[in-house]
Amino acid sequence: MSLLVFGHKSPDTDSICSCISMTYLKKSLGVDAVACCLGDLRKEAEFALNYFGVDAPKRIDSVKEGDQCCLVDHNEFGQSVDGLKDATIVEIVDHHKLGGISTSTPLTVTIKPWGCTNTILYYMYKENNIEIPKEIAGLMLSAILSDTLIFRSPTTTEFDKTAGKALAEIAGVDCEKYGMEMFKAGTSLDGYTVDEIVNMDFKAFDMGGKKVGIGQVMTLDIDAVMEKKDDFLKYINGTDFDMLYLAVTDIIKEGSYLIYKSPDEIVKNAFDVDAKQGVFVEGLVSRKKQIVPNLTPEVEKF
Amino acid sequence: MSLLVFGHKSPDTDSICSCISMTYLKKSLGVDAVACCLGDLRKEAEFALNYFGVDAPKRIDSVKEGDQCCLVDHNEFGQSVDGLKDATIVEIVDHHKLGGISTSTPLTVTIKPWGCTNTILYYMYKENNIEIPKEIAGLMLSAILSDTLIFRSPTTTEFDKTAGKALAEIAGVDCEKYGMEMFKAGTSLDGYTVDEIVNMDFKAFDMGGKKVGIGQVMTLDIDAVMEKKDDFLKYINGTDFDMLYLAVTDIIKEGSYLIYKSPDEIVKNAFDVDAKQGVFVEGLVSRKKQIVPNLTPEVEKF
Repeated sequence: MSLLVFGHKSPDTDSICSCISMTYLKKSLGVDAVACCLGDLRKEAEFALNYFGVDAPKRIDSVKEGDQCCLVDHNEFGQSVDGLKDATIVEIVDHHKLGGISTSTPLTVTIKPWGCTNTILYYMYKENNIEIPKEIAGLMLSAILSDTLIFRSPTTTEFDKTAGKALAEIAGVDCEKYGMEMFKAGTSLDGYTVDEIVNMDFKAFDMGGKKVGIGQVMTLDIDAVMEKKDDFLKYINGTDFDMLYLAVTDIIKEGSYLIYKSPDEIVKNAFDVDAKQGVFVEGLVSRKKQIVPNLTPEVEKF
Repeated sequence: MSLLVFGHKSPDTDSICSCISMTYLKKSLGVDAVACCLGDLRKEAEFALNYFGVDAPKRIDSVKEGDQCCLVDHNEFGQSVDGLKDATIVEIVDHHKLGGISTSTPLTVTIKPWGCTNTILYYMYKENNIEIPKEIAGLMLSAILSDTLIFRSPTTTEFDKTAGKALAEIAGVDCEKYGMEMFKAGTSLDGYTVDEIVNMDFKAFDMGGKKVGIGQVMTLDIDAVMEKKDDFLKYINGTDFDMLYLAVTDIIKEGSYLIYKSPDEIVKNAFDVDAKQGVFVEGLVSRKKQIVPNLTPEVEKF
């Protein structure tokens, strides 16, 4: 009987890639294992799989008594495959807090407070002297870059950096360049129209009697937006809002590009920048905590 | 603030020794750690500590918010220190099934389905290139010999054997000889009277109208019993039971010595041995599943 290797529901890049890399490790150690997933792939994981030419895990939605399961990147029943309480959990590899799972038999559990499950798996490959093939290294690296925002997230540890660098060498890619490409693909706005993008995450406010709209979109596909700046402006200026601000937020640069229907003066005073269409405001990432409180007094006194 | 390292409540040899060996490992890695225990030491652990000249862990009965805790040889709130839910669990090393603990932050968990926590710790020492001092090796070995019944228990893995042999070499003891000495000390009947030993775990039965008593005592301190065989017989023969059997069970040899008030014929037929006082019956370890069912028809037809 095969060992079924699962990432969590709503799989992200680490869940998809750790399930593939754990399966490869198990097979290398002589265990008949199958990589499984619990939901549709997101764009980012799809990009990584395509880039390194690896098939997606098998879609499996439930398990039953007698099935042997291995959990990666999660350790909670609620996040896992349906029927897991009836099956047997033989191994868990994860980097999250403990979620209260109980089992009826002893098992193997490896949890570390590191940035990514694939970092733990990298050290498990080393410990077992298993060579990591180029395409598996590429997927493991993708997961580490994804979870650590290319080593920028505060959750990043020295272990993540060491593993990431070693894996980048095997995969033959540059962390920064490949990571940005992956994030761009993952946050691509391809296929969305200008008004869909503005209204994707949009809120209307009353600021001193003025009708103000603020849209925000998180993407690294900045060029795709900026190339259509005039189309965005045409759409924005055609609305009946007194002022409308679209924040195109770059999670890696930690800041937002602003396209707006507004007097330049308000933008200049609110964000302390040389106001112009498409201006980048460093550090501006939260609508609730930054954009709204900064804009409100400037709009009100205008 | 120190890291508090705990074994489980009602500590056995593995809990006491793994808490000491984990504490030494943590200190060697630069962590300020304190070995703690949650109850009185049993004779077996006391013997190991005395033999290798190591102090017992510090007795601590509760922890509070802000305390940093490491659990060894258990992973359940119910088996652990009072107040643990309010404290922070930073690490767990164990060889039992998962017991449903949840935490609010990521942590390090190392669980393996091996025979002993100290086997896992042995590999952690190796992984970290930390030399194991003679006395720590002695305690780790004691725990492995205790949990695996000197490698005889079906829970014994190749990892336990490898670790045990390496630790025995460092500790400078012979596994078999030292293990037996430890078990003898741990199951010593010193200080108990003859009638206390007979009645320690005693049950009365009616077998075809005959009043039959069966006492069982698990010990490796066989000589101490056999030396007093005549005293045991005097006491047993003085009771008002028609038949009385005392099984002195040797958990290592997996059999029992019988001292009895009974016709030899019943013992001979029930257990297929040359009946005589103190006879050893190989494989006889369970009163419920072996002694009672074998005796009943023989007593009834006598």
